[in-house]
Amino acid sequence: MIDLRSDTLTAPTDEMRRAMARAEVGDDVYDEDPTVRLLQERVAGLFGHEAALFAPTGSMANVLAVRTVVGVGEEVLCEASAHIARAELGAHTAYTGLGMRTWRGDGGGIDREAIAEMFAPDLGPFFVPTKAISVENTHNFAGGTVQPLADLQWVRSFADEHGCAVHMDGARIWNAHVATGVPLAEYGANVDVLAVCLSKGLGAPVGSLLVGSAAAIEESRIWRKRMGGGMRQIGILAAAGLYALDHHVERLAEDHEHARMLAEAVGVDPATVPTNIVVFSVDDAASYVAEAAASGVRVSAVGARTVRLVTHLGVTREDALRAREVLAAVR
Amino acid sequence: MIDLRSDTLTAPTDEMRRAMARAEVGDDVYDEDPTVRLLQERVAGLFGHEAALFAPTGSMANVLAVRTVVGVGEEVLCEASAHIARAELGAHTAYTGLGMRTWRGDGGGIDREAIAEMFAPDLGPFFVPTKAISVENTHNFAGGTVQPLADLQWVRSFADEHGCAVHMDGARIWNAHVATGVPLAEYGANVDVLAVCLSKGLGAPVGSLLVGSAAAIEESRIWRKRMGGGMRQIGILAAAGLYALDHHVERLAEDHEHARMLAEAVGVDPATVPTNIVVFSVDDAASYVAEAAASGVRVSAVGARTVRLVTHLGVTREDALRAREVLAAVR
Amino acid sequence: MIDLRSDTLTAPTDEMRRAMARAEVGDDVYDEDPTVRLLQERVAGLFGHEAALFAPTGSMANVLAVRTVVGVGEEVLCEASAHIARAELGAHTAYTGLGMRTWRGDGGGIDREAIAEMFAPDLGPFFVPTKAISVENTHNFAGGTVQPLADLQWVRSFADEHGCAVHMDGARIWNAHVATGVPLAEYGANVDVLAVCLSKGLGAPVGSLLVGSAAAIEESRIWRKRMGGGMRQIGILAAAGLYALDHHVERLAEDHEHARMLAEAVGVDPATVPTNIVVFSVDDAASYVAEAAASGVRVSAVGARTVRLVTHLGVTREDALRAREVLAAVR
Amino acid sequence: MIDLRSDTLTAPTDEMRRAMARAEVGDDVYDEDPTVRLLQERVAGLFGHEAALFAPTGSMANVLAVRTVVGVGEEVLCEASAHIARAELGAHTAYTGLGMRTWRGDGGGIDREAIAEMFAPDLGPFFVPTKAISVENTHNFAGGTVQPLADLQWVRSFADEHGCAVHMDGARIWNAHVATGVPLAEYGANVDVLAVCLSKGLGAPVGSLLVGSAAAIEESRIWRKRMGGGMRQIGILAAAGLYALDHHVERLAEDHEHARMLAEAVGVDPATVPTNIVVFSVDDAASYVAEAAASGVRVSAVGARTVRLVTHLGVTREDALRAREVLAAVR
Repeated sequence: MIDLRSDTLTAPTDEMRRAMARAEVGDDVYDEDPTVRLLQERVAGLFGHEAALFAPTGSMANVLAVRTVVGVGEEVLCEASAHIARAELGAHTAYTGLGMRTWRGDGGGIDREAIAEMFAPDLGPFFVPTKAISVENTHNFAGGTVQPLADLQWVRSFADEHGCAVHMDGARIWNAHVATGVPLAEYGANVDVLAVCLSKGLGAPVGSLLVGSAAAIEESRIWRKRMGGGMRQIGILAAAGLYALDHHVERLAEDHEHARMLAEAVGVDPATVPTNIVVFSVDDAASYVAEAAASGVRVSAVGARTVRLVTHLGVTREDALRAREVLAAVR
Repeated sequence: MIDLRSDTLTAPTDEMRRAMARAEVGDDVYDEDPTVRLLQERVAGLFGHEAALFAPTGSMANVLAVRTVVGVGEEVLCEASAHIARAELGAHTAYTGLGMRTWRGDGGGIDREAIAEMFAPDLGPFFVPTKAISVENTHNFAGGTVQPLADLQWVRSFADEHGCAVHMDGARIWNAHVATGVPLAEYGANVDVLAVCLSKGLGAPVGSLLVGSAAAIEESRIWRKRMGGGMRQIGILAAAGLYALDHHVERLAEDHEHARMLAEAVGVDPATVPTNIVVFSVDDAASYVAEAAASGVRVSAVGARTVRLVTHLGVTREDALRAREVLAAVR
Repeated sequence: MIDLRSDTLTAPTDEMRRAMARAEVGDDVYDEDPTVRLLQERVAGLFGHEAALFAPTGSMANVLAVRTVVGVGEEVLCEASAHIARAELGAHTAYTGLGMRTWRGDGGGIDREAIAEMFAPDLGPFFVPTKAISVENTHNFAGGTVQPLADLQWVRSFADEHGCAVHMDGARIWNAHVATGVPLAEYGANVDVLAVCLSKGLGAPVGSLLVGSAAAIEESRIWRKRMGGGMRQIGILAAAGLYALDHHVERLAEDHEHARMLAEAVGVDPATVPTNIVVFSVDDAASYVAEAAASGVRVSAVGARTVRLVTHLGVTREDALRAREVLAAVR
Repeated sequence: MIDLRSDTLTAPTDEMRRAMARAEVGDDVYDEDPTVRLLQERVAGLFGHEAALFAPTGSMANVLAVRTVVGVGEEVLCEASAHIARAELGAHTAYTGLGMRTWRGDGGGIDREAIAEMFAPDLGPFFVPTKAISVENTHNFAGGTVQPLADLQWVRSFADEHGCAVHMDGARIWNAHVATGVPLAEYGANVDVLAVCLSKGLGAPVGSLLVGSAAAIEESRIWRKRMGGGMRQIGILAAAGLYALDHHVERLAEDHEHARMLAEAVGVDPATVPTNIVVFSVDDAASYVAEAAASGVRVSAVGARTVRLVTHLGVTREDALRAREVLAAVR
């Protein structure tokens, strides 16, 4: 079975397992795990921010990250198919209690005119003021699309001008970086707080980080514990992340190539597939998924008529070639 | 001072006060206030629904109403400048914890293509399913615009087809009714639950109602008490509502005429002013508001460069004529 | 039918209705209702505090009041049968999200040793710190008991010493004042924030106030609106409150006398009935309530084997005499 | 440095690391991690329940567990120094929104009379009904005390009789089991839902489980994801748990012996130390902690004048002997 449901499915490699097995650990609730501290410092450094915090999942990292800039009675603006709106089970509104409004962007992208029109200044306690603009990069449900740097810079300067913050859901920022060559620090420079994930393309078994100012991270430690994310000897997991940063970033280019190989088989122009995700329309997503699985390829329904396939560390070139054949036949 | 800030500003008339003073009352927490019961039955009947519930404010009525159809981990779709998104201080997300996504509609209107594309079916517990579409009629921040009946019918049939509910924020449904002649029951027929207000155009001092099924209303009584809205001898207030239904509905046509009179003075085409609200752009809303006030006319800033004026029971034809002169000079 | 279920049942008198009918009003969301402002200033003054805020119910007043001193991750200590714990449908934890721990007090009273032992200092973000001690005076479910001034003074000084706040649920503080002669300002001096009610013993149809510092009240206006409690021309209701303060405070002594008259009939020593509430044990509360009602007297089940009766403005001496006969027979 | 701050501090042993390194894994969000499934089935079986669910922390396991039996507008009763009340940063009230009331128990124990008196039957939507009684076993802040089986059985039958559930915070249930010989299944038989921890005495680096009915666990999977606890290839962590169940349960007896050795040094009667925790009073907890640390022994302040020491896998007999000397001198 070739599993293209998600890049979350990657199992740790033998080398990564060895790195985990020999990790130095401590109790991270007391901030005493040296491997976690190393990972946090390294990731903060990569994005040019002061500090970072390990979180058990990308969802929690996003909730904690957005919470540093938006609270009750305030709102975040994001694209209508953003992961924070569509796929975190409502955690931002359920647990943080913040408000959310959405614009619809081509390819999950930044619509400058929409943002400018929707932005709500703080007019006093009768209205909900916009406190952050959130951007997902790459954008999962839009098909791994990359936010153009010029758009991110525009968001940054718009936010600065209007006194609001910028959050990036960078679960797959590594893919954007590899696909475009834009340095991670350049992405970091355009946001106040971001969440990045180790367990998607990077292939670590568990873990995400939020990245931001020292003050935001310190406050987030408390909220992480309140949400039940204050784990103990997670140097074990952080070691996988450090290993992944050393060995699994540049290889994402292969995943991108595999995704383009698969695109044509599902009727998508490869030129429109910038990274490792292909989203495409079918008549009936559920039956398409079932048929592909019967032929040995697993993909996901992400809408009633929308299917998604994702390439990753666990998909070899041979797998990609075979999946191409299978999916061409399903379709 | 002519006060056009909002139609919430209306003071009860002498006749209305007399009706309040002689109201029969009981303890409404025990559901024993006869005047409240009468009002609730009457309003439910007007919209062809089973039951209604008095609430202290339009905000609470909306929160209770939407809550009957959308919970944690679920979402409501609404227009980006809807009152439930922009102006209830985030109560829906803060207290109900529901999710919200928005489309941007011309004149606050229903964008069929956007709704159809944004609608999220229930794909299991990885995504946030759409459980309701909310429509505001008339739409406050878009300038008292009326939702065309054909659009409401489309929403109703789309929702039926996709298994979701329809909520209407009908705080000013009376204005829509008077402006279009569409019967209230026709509006009621196209929604599962709606909130209507007595203290805006109708001129009662306090009170809104949510209207829906008997089960929804019964459950809402409990949530109303939890939110701190379980008041006691409010037959006093309900009597004002009953009086208003008898005497203040048809007269809304005058408010609409006054609004059109004022439109031209602020550079708005009267043909685009369907009811009692005029929203217009200025260079600096705060200074415009101050200047108008200095000349004896109060209006509201509802955006950094957006001003709103609202006609109501407390604005006579003479007031409207004078305000027209004043605002023409400010502008 | 003589209704002893609650002192919330009082209907406004003719004089009170006249005061309401002629009340000067404005839009209280804009803080422009002169009668509300007058009432707020008067009540704040009675307790020697800076400011007060009208709220639609005692429940909302308590939620807003406690919220000014306790937030998420913090706790309030209160007696185990306190109204804020037992009877506000969980609003404090559901909406404010605060923590709550309880001591069990004789007669709902202050247990100094328990408070001293339970108090949790702020030991950093691993524990929930105690931010307020809440006292109910008079205590509803314990039978209208009065908190001795010496106990309140002890709580005040304990709280000062330990850096936490004191909240009083003073829904029936008027009864405590009349029963003991302790000035309202003396009660006010021993708390940081309190909630008082107009629609119980005082006989107004609707309304409570929270009383505290100007900053706490200003912040509470926003939260009141978020909770859906920002009503409009409530000078109508405030006028009833002002009338009640003038005419219905001293007469509470009659209610207290009536309660003592009834106590003996239900097997309670009148000497243990300080105010207008009698709580007593029966074999089966539900059937007791039914039997009494069948004989023309309504009382409430407040536990599986606990019944409560409450005297009030609507219970005359003749009513009390008759109810005494009826209840003696039920028992 | 001998670290007695908590048994959460244990680092995985070499053998445990090897077990982790070779764990078979899958994506647990899709319920496809075979090692996690194995652990869940095994732990459910140990307690005689249908199912179990891995959670990143004991706090999240408790929040999820209690949430299966208590919701908004309902309450859980627990002891006043219970971990769920004192030490989970208010998550139960902040995130679940449930109500909580507490009894004060000797040694953190079950006070039958208090529970019977405090229990609130469901009297309809005016009051907060008791839906669960929570018991902590062993009880952390009371000094690792064990709940007598007879008390647990009493709670079970009281709950059955009154139609409420029983939750056990069994983070250290293994210690209770080893100290008393009561089978885990016997503990399981007396509760509806419990949370157990792998990363305290058992020495796994990360992980807790909630244990209950299949329906409760299935629903909890969704809430776990919403809280941000839906991790991916955690067979790595589950393998540590399986190893710990095989090798680290019986050895807890050593920790208990070490705790008793240390008790005398801090002025506590060893006969009152049933498991691995010693809680004792000092004049100033902060300065005691500092002084002990200066001499090479770390302990925790858990109150202004209360200190806690905890023995665990990482504390050898030699460590215990040395710590005894050091602490005897501090004291």
